Amino acid sequence: MHTTQVKVRFYELDPYDHVNHTNYLAYFEAARVEFLEEVGWGLQKMKEQGWQIVVVELRARFMAAARLNDVLTVETEVGDIGRATSTWHQRLTRDGEPIATLEVTAAFTDRSGRPRRIPPEFVAAVTGGSPG
Amino acid sequence: MHTTQVKVRFYELDPYDHVNHTNYLAYFEAARVEFLEEVGWGLQKMKEQGWQIVVVELRARFMAAARLNDVLTVETEVGDIGRATSTWHQRLTRDGEPIATLEVTAAFTDRSGRPRRIPPEFVAAVTGGSPG
Amino acid sequence: MHTTQVKVRFYELDPYDHVNHTNYLAYFEAARVEFLEEVGWGLQKMKEQGWQIVVVELRARFMAAARLNDVLTVETEVGDIGRATSTWHQRLTRDGEPIATLEVTAAFTDRSGRPRRIPPEFVAAVTGGSPG
Amino acid sequence: MHTTQVKVRFYELDPYDHVNHTNYLAYFEAARVEFLEEVGWGLQKMKEQGWQIVVVELRARFMAAARLNDVLTVETEVGDIGRATSTWHQRLTRDGEPIATLEVTAAFTDRSGRPRRIPPEFVAAVTGGSPG
Repeated sequence: MHTTQVKVRFYELDPYDHVNHTNYLAYFEAARVEFLEEVGWGLQKMKEQGWQIVVVELRARFMAAARLNDVLTVETEVGDIGRATSTWHQRLTRDGEPIATLEVTAAFTDRSGRPRRIPPEFVAAVTGGSPG
Repeated sequence: MHTTQVKVRFYELDPYDHVNHTNYLAYFEAARVEFLEEVGWGLQKMKEQGWQIVVVELRARFMAAARLNDVLTVETEVGDIGRATSTWHQRLTRDGEPIATLEVTAAFTDRSGRPRRIPPEFVAAVTGGSPG
Repeated sequence: MHTTQVKVRFYELDPYDHVNHTNYLAYFEAARVEFLEEVGWGLQKMKEQGWQIVVVELRARFMAAARLNDVLTVETEVGDIGRATSTWHQRLTRDGEPIATLEVTAAFTDRSGRPRRIPPEFVAAVTGGSPG
Repeated sequence: MHTTQVKVRFYELDPYDHVNHTNYLAYFEAARVEFLEEVGWGLQKMKEQGWQIVVVELRARFMAAARLNDVLTVETEVGDIGRATSTWHQRLTRDGEPIATLEVTAAFTDRSGRPRRIPPEFVAAVTGGSPG
């Protein structure tokens, strides 16, 4: 499991003084990108190879509101990996208290957005295994 | 059904030149807020009364990418309304082509975030009916 | 002079219910990008040619706060054009009332960020003249 | 001088893979808010007292582009404090390399946006002195 932290910034608050819900999804995305970067599949490499990872479906639950200066923990785990799609499970907490959860399915595509078979090296990198 | 339009702005693009998926959720939220404003339940009234509408769950699908200067149509329909929660169905299209869909459940709460019974006047306003 | 409109969206508000000042700068940028697109120097062309327009300096004044659902007018005029930089004057108003003004200097660069001489065709396009 | 750090997040990048310039201004604002929070003039207190700090003018220079995962340092210093306005000097760097600087003037206002005399306790808090 990959863990990172985000600190809530002023401009992420909405008129109710709590983080706008779309920002939780942005935190989750930032955590996934950071995870991929750390296992060698960062933005630059993906762009150079002409690949993209595109969100095709997501399901989120929001349990509590985050506020200014909160430091939140984002946990990211890879779930099922299919031929062209991968599923990710993520959790956002503040001192152990659940703020939000996300289940997101992303497709591996080429530059034009056409689904591509996920390379075995990618699977190995994100699962911590070695390519078959 | 409520219909509105959004035009994609430069700063909503990500490094792949398409709209970051979190912005589609922001477009959907903007459309719901606009809908509520038009039926007399705008942000100011809600704040004065000490009420909030808080997203508790959402499910989104993304079918195609929007790009710079695209003008998108957002359709919003209210679904089930329970004691404290309402469900909304939304669709984002570009010239009829589906870009994304959203099913979102929101809770009616007081200022401290505690669920509150949805006022019958609210139900009447969003369903176009009259309070029982 | 180029004129366009932006409508304030919910997620652009801050905890004081008015548009966060950084969003005015984003509106201004969106207007410049739209202007360039309309005169044939859009994002895709710039990327294909390996050029960028990079903000190097700006000066902004903020006179009044915009609020939810305001429809704002953005006026954009090109000022001095030097060897590698151009200056732009912009104004944001709501029904004639000034909201903000911006003076921004941008450099024409190659993909690595090195300043490049502005092509005469670009000058002609943004000034409405013809290349010498 | 107040110092804090921000880490660049994926959704702050623009199509050129560098941080959109409006986000530097958001980082600067986040740092000012954090500074005020630390000296006892945080968002909640300000709202409870019916005060706002509103940006009225800013001047920014951008020297280099920040990229994904960069950890940036924001330095914030208060400059002149007048009857109703304060000036702030800020600097954004990456490992000592200058990214951007900002000079920003903010007005102290009441909830309706009318300028108010800055309380001596505020001056003392931000200058590290004691009220006269």
